[in-house]
Amino acid sequence: MAEIHSELTHTTHGDTSSHADPTNVPQHGVHPVHGFDVHPWQLCWRGWDIDQIGRTESLFALSNGHIGLRGTFEEGEPVQQPGTYLNGFYETRDLPYAESGYGYPEAGQTVVNVTDGKVIRLLVEDEPMDLRYGRTVDHERCLDFRTGTLRRSTLWTSPTGRTVRIRSERLVSFTKRTIVATRYEVEPIGEDMSLVLQSDLLANEPVPLPGNDPRLAAALEQPLISALADCEDSSAVLVHHTKRSGLTVAAAMSHELDAPGNADVSIRADGDLARMTVAATVPQGGRLVLTKYVAYGWSARRSVPALRSQVEAALAMAAETGWEALKAEQVEYLDEFWRDADIEVDGDPEVQQAIRFALFHVLQAGARGQSRAIPAKGLTGPGYDGHTFWDTESFVLPMLTYTVPGAAGEELRWRHSTLAQAKARAAELAQEGAMFPWRTIEGDECSGYWPAGTAGVHVSADIANATGRYIRATNDEGFEIECGVELLVEVARFFAGFGHHDVNGKFRIDGVTGPDEYTAIINNNLFTNLAAQQALRDAAWTVARHPAVARDLGVTDDEVAHWHACADHMTIPYDEAAGVHQQCEAFTLLDRWDFEASRDRYPLLLNYPYFDLYRKQVVKQADLVFATYLFGEAFTLDEKRTIFDYYYPITVRDSSLSACSESVAAAEVGYLDLAYDLMCESLFTDLHDLHSNVFSGLHIAALGGAWTDCVAGFGGMRDFGGHITFAPRLPSHLNYMSFRMVVRESRLVVAIDATSATYRLLGGPPIDLAHHGEPFTLSDAPVTRPITPLAELTPPLPPVGCEPYRRTP
Amino acid sequence: MAEIHSELTHTTHGDTSSHADPTNVPQHGVHPVHGFDVHPWQLCWRGWDIDQIGRTESLFALSNGHIGLRGTFEEGEPVQQPGTYLNGFYETRDLPYAESGYGYPEAGQTVVNVTDGKVIRLLVEDEPMDLRYGRTVDHERCLDFRTGTLRRSTLWTSPTGRTVRIRSERLVSFTKRTIVATRYEVEPIGEDMSLVLQSDLLANEPVPLPGNDPRLAAALEQPLISALADCEDSSAVLVHHTKRSGLTVAAAMSHELDAPGNADVSIRADGDLARMTVAATVPQGGRLVLTKYVAYGWSARRSVPALRSQVEAALAMAAETGWEALKAEQVEYLDEFWRDADIEVDGDPEVQQAIRFALFHVLQAGARGQSRAIPAKGLTGPGYDGHTFWDTESFVLPMLTYTVPGAAGEELRWRHSTLAQAKARAAELAQEGAMFPWRTIEGDECSGYWPAGTAGVHVSADIANATGRYIRATNDEGFEIECGVELLVEVARFFAGFGHHDVNGKFRIDGVTGPDEYTAIINNNLFTNLAAQQALRDAAWTVARHPAVARDLGVTDDEVAHWHACADHMTIPYDEAAGVHQQCEAFTLLDRWDFEASRDRYPLLLNYPYFDLYRKQVVKQADLVFATYLFGEAFTLDEKRTIFDYYYPITVRDSSLSACSESVAAAEVGYLDLAYDLMCESLFTDLHDLHSNVFSGLHIAALGGAWTDCVAGFGGMRDFGGHITFAPRLPSHLNYMSFRMVVRESRLVVAIDATSATYRLLGGPPIDLAHHGEPFTLSDAPVTRPITPLAELTPPLPPVGCEPYRRTP
Repeated sequence: MAEIHSELTHTTHGDTSSHADPTNVPQHGVHPVHGFDVHPWQLCWRGWDIDQIGRTESLFALSNGHIGLRGTFEEGEPVQQPGTYLNGFYETRDLPYAESGYGYPEAGQTVVNVTDGKVIRLLVEDEPMDLRYGRTVDHERCLDFRTGTLRRSTLWTSPTGRTVRIRSERLVSFTKRTIVATRYEVEPIGEDMSLVLQSDLLANEPVPLPGNDPRLAAALEQPLISALADCEDSSAVLVHHTKRSGLTVAAAMSHELDAPGNADVSIRADGDLARMTVAATVPQGGRLVLTKYVAYGWSARRSVPALRSQVEAALAMAAETGWEALKAEQVEYLDEFWRDADIEVDGDPEVQQAIRFALFHVLQAGARGQSRAIPAKGLTGPGYDGHTFWDTESFVLPMLTYTVPGAAGEELRWRHSTLAQAKARAAELAQEGAMFPWRTIEGDECSGYWPAGTAGVHVSADIANATGRYIRATNDEGFEIECGVELLVEVARFFAGFGHHDVNGKFRIDGVTGPDEYTAIINNNLFTNLAAQQALRDAAWTVARHPAVARDLGVTDDEVAHWHACADHMTIPYDEAAGVHQQCEAFTLLDRWDFEASRDRYPLLLNYPYFDLYRKQVVKQADLVFATYLFGEAFTLDEKRTIFDYYYPITVRDSSLSACSESVAAAEVGYLDLAYDLMCESLFTDLHDLHSNVFSGLHIAALGGAWTDCVAGFGGMRDFGGHITFAPRLPSHLNYMSFRMVVRESRLVVAIDATSATYRLLGGPPIDLAHHGEPFTLSDAPVTRPITPLAELTPPLPPVGCEPYRRTP
Repeated sequence: MAEIHSELTHTTHGDTSSHADPTNVPQHGVHPVHGFDVHPWQLCWRGWDIDQIGRTESLFALSNGHIGLRGTFEEGEPVQQPGTYLNGFYETRDLPYAESGYGYPEAGQTVVNVTDGKVIRLLVEDEPMDLRYGRTVDHERCLDFRTGTLRRSTLWTSPTGRTVRIRSERLVSFTKRTIVATRYEVEPIGEDMSLVLQSDLLANEPVPLPGNDPRLAAALEQPLISALADCEDSSAVLVHHTKRSGLTVAAAMSHELDAPGNADVSIRADGDLARMTVAATVPQGGRLVLTKYVAYGWSARRSVPALRSQVEAALAMAAETGWEALKAEQVEYLDEFWRDADIEVDGDPEVQQAIRFALFHVLQAGARGQSRAIPAKGLTGPGYDGHTFWDTESFVLPMLTYTVPGAAGEELRWRHSTLAQAKARAAELAQEGAMFPWRTIEGDECSGYWPAGTAGVHVSADIANATGRYIRATNDEGFEIECGVELLVEVARFFAGFGHHDVNGKFRIDGVTGPDEYTAIINNNLFTNLAAQQALRDAAWTVARHPAVARDLGVTDDEVAHWHACADHMTIPYDEAAGVHQQCEAFTLLDRWDFEASRDRYPLLLNYPYFDLYRKQVVKQADLVFATYLFGEAFTLDEKRTIFDYYYPITVRDSSLSACSESVAAAEVGYLDLAYDLMCESLFTDLHDLHSNVFSGLHIAALGGAWTDCVAGFGGMRDFGGHITFAPRLPSHLNYMSFRMVVRESRLVVAIDATSATYRLLGGPPIDLAHHGEPFTLSDAPVTRPITPLAELTPPLPPVGCEPYRRTP
């Protein structure tokens, strides 16, 4: 994916003191500090910086995988990118080509900002509350990883000198996936005040239009057409259609008002706006409290009345549950999540916070998608058009598989639901089996540059590999029978037909692009070949487990034998003279890149043509290095280190997927402190805005990759063939790390310090594990094993100008 | 280039009888035969077929390389594509990308139809003369290769029963390059008639808009903005600007009228239309004769008054010369051309006609371009946006170099005039030296798909090779000093910097696309490597000849030594196991294409994705096979035959450049009858509309390639290092062939029959030649040498569905 990192700069982040609870009036002085307080379970931003609002809108996004809300202010403005997203809801746009070609996708899909239910505007004695005017005495927002809410507290003096305290709390329910709830509270300070609240459902909000593509702008500007608007009492509903994609979205809101004394309440709904208006005079010390429930629904098939009914029913349920109970359910849901997924570290409190931030956002991206995709940005922003890439299966699903396995299964069920499209795409491209899209929302290929899109056939293998991993890690036989066998069979069919045995009997996969997008349309990309090998073998494996399912799919013994023949004779490019594996055939014979000349010109793709990048030994993101982790059985430890030593110095990490991939490989070959630096780069990608593009959404894969770095990197966890093994070893910056995992029916925790690791079974049956190659069975009794320290190894140097983001000087 | 051939179908062409002079009334019956009469010096079409007018507009196009007129009717309609083109005159348009990238060209250039001066409308007693109405009793048009005019004779009865004879003759002057002249004559048959003639200059004619690109349509629809319109007596002038490219075009017309009795003459000029109207009553047997002169000029810099003056001065000169003298000059010019360039054959009169048709149109494309490009379609239609590709240097210049060397020199001077752009393009792409564009009108890269555009770096080598060839063939020292050295040096600098010596000391050129566009972004394309090798060596050669020029260009001894080191260690991919050279590294290990499955799906690029084509052994057009001819010294004869036997069966000739390339290689390795069939395919590409796209313009390179097939194929002519050698051998279908050449100061003719060849010097100093490897000096006395017949060789079979177009059953 065309991921761009520019400079590894970041704003000064907060000191390491613990934070104040933002629901209380802060104790400290007038001018808030910039950036985030450090807290193990919260992310809190004090102060208000107009140039940071795009960033905080993404970081404070709430989502349950079905609905996503950017962390905008209730008052609607100031705003960088208002964003309310529904997973799978998109508009269609034309993809233009200066020179078109057979099989180029003609239509793209773009996530659209749907009806905004976040808005609650406030007038203080006729002055609109707007942080850009008057004086912000105190302002703090806080994303709480245990309550799953975004809290906010603002002390604001209007231009005419009236001071109010505003508190709000917002949630996107994990337990009721169609529901958003907000509590908004205003307290006059020092005098009685006339206050007006306007609570909106607002469609077709103005959004910043991207770059220079008039077709994309046309798709995003005013994307919705009103189909219905209605209101009654304190409830309203709006239904809209998209112009081209034929989708319908319904949003409904209802309110509970707690006003000291009388309040005038009116409501209207018309076209793109439904609004409940509350006017009240509130005495000083009193509070005007509005609780707002919003329900969303969308469909490609259901009628306007049906969708309206659906959201109104959901709303009734939410109101019946009530604000406090919704909050309690949210906490309960998260308690369970942290029980199975938490990672604790000792040695760097900000890293601890960042890890929980990462786990929380990956959960938000995938929790309740329910047979929908997990986009590269989750539902936190419009970046990448809202598309899903290979990132999901390769960086996000590993964490979910071992922590929230149900969410991983749902994502793979989504892939399975697009199998007809993937088979049609394969047929269109004269291939057998299924070819999954490089980027998509709904399942069709949306890549407008095939050398870095359609040619990235490893995406199909990645999906197959994630399927095999999921089946082995969960024993989810229902999934395997309904989806897994077919996914694996169709991907195996693709690779078996796509590659061929050459005159020397080797199985070749030619004309592809691997993870490294600075080398494209090449032969025998080793990552792709190993991923395909795994996919072919997993297909044979699942077919043997479910012969009846396989028979229904027309799988024959000959076909399975052919899959084995392809896998067993897979081409493994190796440079005998240099003594190193090749990222692809001939790679090590290519010209060297002049890193000195390009030291100030990252990301390279903005400063050099593909034409030049493709033909040289310069790597955008870990490719073969990542393969040494994913397909670790194909290499000896020495080979892995040789590969790392060769490729790390030519990999520029112009993709946010790179640091986490290099980190896990570095840890295995013994470069533990480098692994730590690289993990931190992945972990702080968004918190420190390392790629200067967090405003358009979070990098969910980089966050998921940080989980891999902890568990598979420093924990040394591997799952080859369903056999879970560990080889824990901490970097010098960490005194302690523990992580939790769910494997099939077993829940376990691994606690690691400098000299030993202790394994505990938290629930479920005993499980066979291994510690640094030594097998043991973990049952009720904890098992402690020593860790022998490694000899100090000096890692290779990165390309000049590409030093990893370091936590410590 | 994205050349498309669909089916190898063609309309039934005429019988082989000789033709009637179309200026005389035909003797035969009412309904004319379809297609062309066979005549050695003319191309005549009898009858009028609405579905063929697009085709005849291209075939009957007149051009002098500066002005091009499609062969439309004077009456303006019916018309498929009105076309008046000025070499280098274009409009700019945006190039859109679904996903853009660094270094992608943002603007394209498109040839536009300028002010049409061909139009002379006729009213016969108030009925507009239009072949679609009334009755066309007799209709014939004739392109005369010796007079350089397009004649036409029509006997037409109007819907109200009036019959007129119309005769016209049109020329685009070779001697006065800004002048077009038409004589138009109407004769009432059987009764006196009122006739009205309207002679127009018409800008912004409606043109058929291409496909589905709204930006291209926008550029082509109404491309001109009026800047001036004026008239006086029988003269008028229009000046227009383009909207975006900033070019100005002026067109002026003047007339001579010969009317029996009185005629009312009026003239007007306004905006997009200037019109002289003539109304006269003409007695039966009398003739109304209008002679029209049109002058064109365009400029990117000159003012409107300056351009107006320029075309009015040209017009005055044309009128002063007069119609008969213009015709006489035209004949004289062509006499000289045929003296130096004619090819005579015995054995197939239609082939004789087709060869002269080919030579005539190549002349028209290049004759008077004067430091302008020779586009792929010449100036015969809007195909390929009017762009120039590598075709020009590789297929057109070979003929011009040895027949009209001045025209070849002018084209190379045009390339030299774009050197600043080529150097800027190289710098933009992080390269040294000069990178010439894949497709352009004015010198900037206009390719919107870089894998088949910018990656085709052989275009720069092709230009360098044409430069070296031209210098050696002409001894044009002025050109060499002013342009040649610099062209060669900058191209050598590009390749020396672009390739690199690998760890084994071999010089590699990676990440390029060769002539075969079904294999792209590959390493060490052998054609490219050999073309670069030649370019590097020619640069060293010319630098040694002109050390002072080289010094001015900053060339050092070290640099020249490096060029030699690159050339001498060039990578030559060879498959030891298969015993054959590789089109590119690893090519022979790629998967086989299933030709049986694709037999009805040509051209493949319209039915298969590049994604699949690139990764298999399927070749769009002769690539390595063409290299065996161009760089013949790099291969033994056995190697050439092995290459032909391997690659011909996998080459689908989806490009019109392929047949002529395969033909010359086939002839060398002894497949003479196959070579003949392939030459005929090239020769009849346009006449028989083999690619079903002649309506958009002629395939000038295929026509030029047919010259190569005759002279270098059956004549065996080679020019390695300036040493002209021959190895003549005729195919069984030809009894005799002779061809003429200009080499430096010497003019010669080679006459070949089945058993011998006779060489004659027609003028100039003696010249050293060779016949089948045996050297001799040709001076005044003819030299006859025997030809030993070859053993019968069975050629390989082509891909199924790709049989060459055969002249004989």
